[in-house]
Amino acid sequence: MLRKLFTPVLALLAGSAMAQSDDSLMIRNIADEILVNGKAYENLRVLCKTVGGRVAGSPQMLKAESWGVKALQAAGADKVWLQECMVPHWVRGAKEEAYYLIDGKKIALNVLALGNSMGSGPKGVSAPIILINSFEELEKRKDEIKGKIVFYNYKFNSKFVKTFQSYGDASRYRGTGASRAAKYGALAVLVRSMSHSTDNHPHTGAMNYDTSYSKIPAAAVGLEDADKLAAALAANKKVSGFLKTNAQMLPDEKGHNVIGELIGTEHPEQIITIGGHLDSWDPAEGAHDDGAGCVHSIEVLRVLKAIGYKPKNTIRIVLFANEENGLRGGTAYAKEAKEKGEKHIFALESDAGGFTPRGFGFSLANPSQLQKVQTWADLFKPYGVFELTNGGGGADIGPLKGALGTPLAGFVPDSQRYFDIHHAKSDVFENVNKRELELGAVNMAALIYLIDKYGL
Amino acid sequence: MLRKLFTPVLALLAGSAMAQSDDSLMIRNIADEILVNGKAYENLRVLCKTVGGRVAGSPQMLKAESWGVKALQAAGADKVWLQECMVPHWVRGAKEEAYYLIDGKKIALNVLALGNSMGSGPKGVSAPIILINSFEELEKRKDEIKGKIVFYNYKFNSKFVKTFQSYGDASRYRGTGASRAAKYGALAVLVRSMSHSTDNHPHTGAMNYDTSYSKIPAAAVGLEDADKLAAALAANKKVSGFLKTNAQMLPDEKGHNVIGELIGTEHPEQIITIGGHLDSWDPAEGAHDDGAGCVHSIEVLRVLKAIGYKPKNTIRIVLFANEENGLRGGTAYAKEAKEKGEKHIFALESDAGGFTPRGFGFSLANPSQLQKVQTWADLFKPYGVFELTNGGGGADIGPLKGALGTPLAGFVPDSQRYFDIHHAKSDVFENVNKRELELGAVNMAALIYLIDKYGL
Repeated sequence: MLRKLFTPVLALLAGSAMAQSDDSLMIRNIADEILVNGKAYENLRVLCKTVGGRVAGSPQMLKAESWGVKALQAAGADKVWLQECMVPHWVRGAKEEAYYLIDGKKIALNVLALGNSMGSGPKGVSAPIILINSFEELEKRKDEIKGKIVFYNYKFNSKFVKTFQSYGDASRYRGTGASRAAKYGALAVLVRSMSHSTDNHPHTGAMNYDTSYSKIPAAAVGLEDADKLAAALAANKKVSGFLKTNAQMLPDEKGHNVIGELIGTEHPEQIITIGGHLDSWDPAEGAHDDGAGCVHSIEVLRVLKAIGYKPKNTIRIVLFANEENGLRGGTAYAKEAKEKGEKHIFALESDAGGFTPRGFGFSLANPSQLQKVQTWADLFKPYGVFELTNGGGGADIGPLKGALGTPLAGFVPDSQRYFDIHHAKSDVFENVNKRELELGAVNMAALIYLIDKYGL
Repeated sequence: MLRKLFTPVLALLAGSAMAQSDDSLMIRNIADEILVNGKAYENLRVLCKTVGGRVAGSPQMLKAESWGVKALQAAGADKVWLQECMVPHWVRGAKEEAYYLIDGKKIALNVLALGNSMGSGPKGVSAPIILINSFEELEKRKDEIKGKIVFYNYKFNSKFVKTFQSYGDASRYRGTGASRAAKYGALAVLVRSMSHSTDNHPHTGAMNYDTSYSKIPAAAVGLEDADKLAAALAANKKVSGFLKTNAQMLPDEKGHNVIGELIGTEHPEQIITIGGHLDSWDPAEGAHDDGAGCVHSIEVLRVLKAIGYKPKNTIRIVLFANEENGLRGGTAYAKEAKEKGEKHIFALESDAGGFTPRGFGFSLANPSQLQKVQTWADLFKPYGVFELTNGGGGADIGPLKGALGTPLAGFVPDSQRYFDIHHAKSDVFENVNKRELELGAVNMAALIYLIDKYGL
């Protein structure tokens, strides 16, 4: 009796072990193909070195779209097309000028205008600088703000081990600091860069104006300069400053999501989306943010084709047009998917850099889906992924969840180096490690293979 | 009755949960202190920038010893001293010259003499070059070797995810290739660098002569040059080459292990050793290899002192005098420990770079010790350590296991970038990330705290 009772269980276990062994071999094939013949690194080199920085609406955006089409075709996509969407068109203009004065001596500040910010006008802003360490301090000292340049010196918190937590904590100063200061009559804001870097590069990024208040100029300051300026202000010296930025927001431009597919053999109507965003900030090459995510995604398609895997579902790679300052690409993609009644069974984004893999974060429909994913844990460990956790996705695929309830995941590489280079001139190809980039693609392809095969 | 039966079990579980919670808080303290006030990065800067490369026996070795004494004193050691040992004294001499000739055209090769190798003499070696891809090929073609320069082009295997496996596989060509070729009459060897790097820097490292054969010169070739040379030879062109190296092995010099202690409060006679090696190859600054291990180890002592932790056992930091080309430091340390009848309960080494933490590898006395360590797994995960595995240690602490059976562990950081810079001119301070380095020290200090508190 006991034997009879246990037979189905044993059969199930044996079946599961065999499946894991087959899957393990398939993932080993994926890894070998990428680690030996991978194209992600060379694709990234071409994007970084022949296109470079590519703000939405810029001429480089169009060059990047052409790059994406060619790369997807070369990877073996069954079909490649452009999906139109309107994107914001912010331009930095001429290089910013900034300095502060102590005892009549000008000390230059290395700054970058924040994305979406308005220029100061040709005369710039000359005013006393006030050091503000937090929004709490801003509120306490609101009567001292008028007619001044507010310098937000809120520090990137070293105690968070995962640096995205520090970013989530500090980035509100970049996003909303200008309008919060303008509310009390500030003439401009300088914002300490959101970074642990040991250099002085300023880190730009999007800000947004609250239209209730004056649209004052806003710029990021490198960490060394921020420390010097804060020390000068803390020493109670009267410090005045000058900021001239030349940015402007022009009318929207036509841009495109670049899309490539492997058409599913059993359920071509069921779509699995894998993507990153094609736009980047202008001061650098957008190598990690998010060239890496684009080439990761293209490599997933390439490797499945190269090893002869026939996906059951349609594998669709999307290089989103505009994440940094508008999310127009992801919004347009989800809108069309809903309008067409498409069936999106899963979406995966890579937008946290091309560093050594750590895990995936999931936003799924229910806990049993995550439990299912976690039964695959041992398949990922040989390739460096140990964390399959709840919570995650990506900015570009977020609207798909909103529109269609699509289950999401975000690729999670190691975060220690990301904010050293994020939105700064150091986000260049040379700061990407070939094998780390490749291992990201290995794990992404492995996840897509498992989800295509077993569903969620 | 059921209640009574379960009470002790529940109490045990509750006790264990409380212990984990206390430990979790203590490790959080360790992390906060290191991530906010850490000295490892600045210590490493001083070592790299004021001492630089420090081959055993060189004047820089003595400067490094002084640095170590000061750094351990500043970290708060109860006691700091030097332990004498004789070390080899190999000198590179003047810069190497190497080229090959195709159709009378000289093409320069970027090479570095291998550590311990003999110079070619002032005239250098001029001879035809033969491409040998493996030792198997060498044996097959042994009759073609005489009078030639053997170029070993064995590739670093991309398929191994953990690059130390590729190193273990390829490094025998560096270690024994010269004598194996000399056996068949070769005049010199060139060895493809053991690396996945995308640059052309040659990677040196120790070799050893089999004294049965002629001591022929041996040098490492950068990867780009190796590929070009291999292509030229594969095209069946007659390729001759020239190699001049100027190295020599001088008589042994007096060197020292630099040692600092926190004396145990309950069992001062029980010693826990934590170390890295102070020597490095000369072409770079030995930042990752093994400056990182030295400053990791010093930081363990510093943080325990800074947070006011009183270790039960003696915590002893050892900066070993000579790992790269002789292992004299670790050998002398174990010898004295045995002679004095010291009780060494555990030893931990960091000698795999200062990259983002992944795990620890253990060589313990029995499986139950590893099981005990693995009960601590959840305490490490917030700091990036997910792998507590069997097998590991370190070259310098290996003799301690041999002499006294001491249980060992090796710190395992991410390995993707290590061999890009290992033993090459790119192993400089600028290629170390501050937070990755600090997180290594966090996990090492956490492990030492747990072993000091609970034993093995």
